[in-house]
Amino acid sequence: MRESEFLQALHFNSIRCGDGSVANMSVPVVLAVDDEKRGEIGGCERVVLVDGEDRPVAILNGIEIYKHNKEERIARTWGTTARGLPYVEEAITNAGDWLIGGDLEVIEPIKYNDGLDQYRLSPAELREEFSRRNADAVFAFQLRNPVHNGHALLMNDTRRRLLEMGYKNPILLLHPLGGYTKADDVPLEWRMKQHEKVLEEGVLNPETTVVAIFPSPMHYAGPTEVQWHAKARINAGANFYIVGRDPAGMSHPTEKRDLYDADHGKKVLSMAPGLEKLNILPFRVAAYDKTQGKMDFFDPSRPQDFLFISGTKMRTLAKNRENPPDGFMCPGGWKVLVEYYDSVAAASGESKKVLETIQA
Amino acid sequence: MRESEFLQALHFNSIRCGDGSVANMSVPVVLAVDDEKRGEIGGCERVVLVDGEDRPVAILNGIEIYKHNKEERIARTWGTTARGLPYVEEAITNAGDWLIGGDLEVIEPIKYNDGLDQYRLSPAELREEFSRRNADAVFAFQLRNPVHNGHALLMNDTRRRLLEMGYKNPILLLHPLGGYTKADDVPLEWRMKQHEKVLEEGVLNPETTVVAIFPSPMHYAGPTEVQWHAKARINAGANFYIVGRDPAGMSHPTEKRDLYDADHGKKVLSMAPGLEKLNILPFRVAAYDKTQGKMDFFDPSRPQDFLFISGTKMRTLAKNRENPPDGFMCPGGWKVLVEYYDSVAAASGESKKVLETIQA
Repeated sequence: MRESEFLQALHFNSIRCGDGSVANMSVPVVLAVDDEKRGEIGGCERVVLVDGEDRPVAILNGIEIYKHNKEERIARTWGTTARGLPYVEEAITNAGDWLIGGDLEVIEPIKYNDGLDQYRLSPAELREEFSRRNADAVFAFQLRNPVHNGHALLMNDTRRRLLEMGYKNPILLLHPLGGYTKADDVPLEWRMKQHEKVLEEGVLNPETTVVAIFPSPMHYAGPTEVQWHAKARINAGANFYIVGRDPAGMSHPTEKRDLYDADHGKKVLSMAPGLEKLNILPFRVAAYDKTQGKMDFFDPSRPQDFLFISGTKMRTLAKNRENPPDGFMCPGGWKVLVEYYDSVAAASGESKKVLETIQA
Repeated sequence: MRESEFLQALHFNSIRCGDGSVANMSVPVVLAVDDEKRGEIGGCERVVLVDGEDRPVAILNGIEIYKHNKEERIARTWGTTARGLPYVEEAITNAGDWLIGGDLEVIEPIKYNDGLDQYRLSPAELREEFSRRNADAVFAFQLRNPVHNGHALLMNDTRRRLLEMGYKNPILLLHPLGGYTKADDVPLEWRMKQHEKVLEEGVLNPETTVVAIFPSPMHYAGPTEVQWHAKARINAGANFYIVGRDPAGMSHPTEKRDLYDADHGKKVLSMAPGLEKLNILPFRVAAYDKTQGKMDFFDPSRPQDFLFISGTKMRTLAKNRENPPDGFMCPGGWKVLVEYYDSVAAASGESKKVLETIQA
């Protein structure tokens, strides 16, 4: 981003385009450089962007370098400057004090070479896939966690509602986030294995589901980030977006409360500039119904029958090799999670052993 | 403001109106209530707003009460949560944890009864005044400081430029801010006396100048606040807005730097949603030209000839009863400032004497 785009993203969550129309853009997409790099660039008009192995991946033309005011960027994006925001610590705090922007020319599609590139479809490739499947409606589901049967219920119920609305072939875009996530989230590779099982075991129908990776990092920026999550899926061909309680939210890093009001994400999204045509599908809360032995929509008239299984609870069960109640997640999917936590435990045992050997 | 307006102001600096158009609105205009007051209001549908003497001034209909998330409000408005932001300490930190919004019905025009109400013209009254004067262009100058000859040069030069552009009768709206300002700013009553002298002594032409009070408090919120300053003047009939270096800016309250980039105010204002039709007149920097003995536009080819006299420097001179260089401010205007600082010194001497008497 150039400075004018950066400022518009921070102040207005949207950018005015050349034709006068407004595009939603709530999180800055910027590249930081430090004093040394800035000195090296000097008066150059363009720079080559390279990957971790110094291979050229893109050219930035007609560059401009401007101040990276980190405090202001953080405050206006997260609504707090408290220490401990995961993405801030990962990508901002130690980044350079300058930002470099320009006109981006990507040399060829970016490859990660991690065995998952076939899932990294560009917006154009996704639109093509929906058209190939003759979709007359596309509904997107953003996630960064394993899919349990509550999620599946919601997605299947959404399809049912769209059919009722008269659509003939609604297609689900199951679009797990593929960039940075915080340390206690399950890594992408394991989540993809888990999602594969969910489709293999028929919890979601492979014929009406497209699984692809959304390569963005997770900002945990609540109402600001949910706009980015929705906007990116609209670009990729979705016209319905499923939004839940406290999207992209987390606990306040230093206070005993949630960082964002649980309803603000949905409210802000519904009013966001550039997203006027978005159809928002509100998320009904699903929980484990003990009387039925399966995940179902929570019925407030009989709260005692329902069990809420949080992400933390789910992770703790899988770590301890305990089983969740039957019907919480498909068995193959659950097995993947248990394997992941076993591999973490084995690796940590390994490193413990190595450490003991060194110390001995 | 209702919650939907509050959220839009915080996230988008603008509000979508019923007809689909977008109105700029960068600072929340909200009313805080505490737990006790919230309890008293209970399930009422409307409340009466009263002044300091419990006299009804307005009715708030169809009320809603929502959370006052102070940290998020401060971060998104100021781009920092550092302690020491003047308006935050004045009006937010100790305010209630709830906000009350609704449809406002003002009973009759608000009076302050401080001898200055004749200057508090409503936007409609200002538009009427411009029309009475047959203005074909109105240019607004926002200020919270005494007018020195550098300001006057700028305003007179703006008028000259507008005449050159073909306008026949450009009228200046000299619109000092009348609400809360920080402790070291000169109080409104003294500023108004100073402004009167500036017109009396012909530094500004009374025939082409309308002096009125802008009753807003000062937020010192830089690029966010400058939008509010401009939008309010457009509402009052202005079509040109003079904007300077670092408008509504201040020093960072805890770090040794300015809080905002000096150019961001102008840049953000030029891109702000709802202000597309605003004509921004960039401020040329004026300084004291020692070779001419008067304020003039700074000439970067001979910097040694110019003297910059900051607000702090001006206040220090007036406090110490020293004179600024001839031509810095009209004599009558300067006398008002000296009188103000004398009155402060006398009052502080008075209270010192009272204290000594008590102690003795």
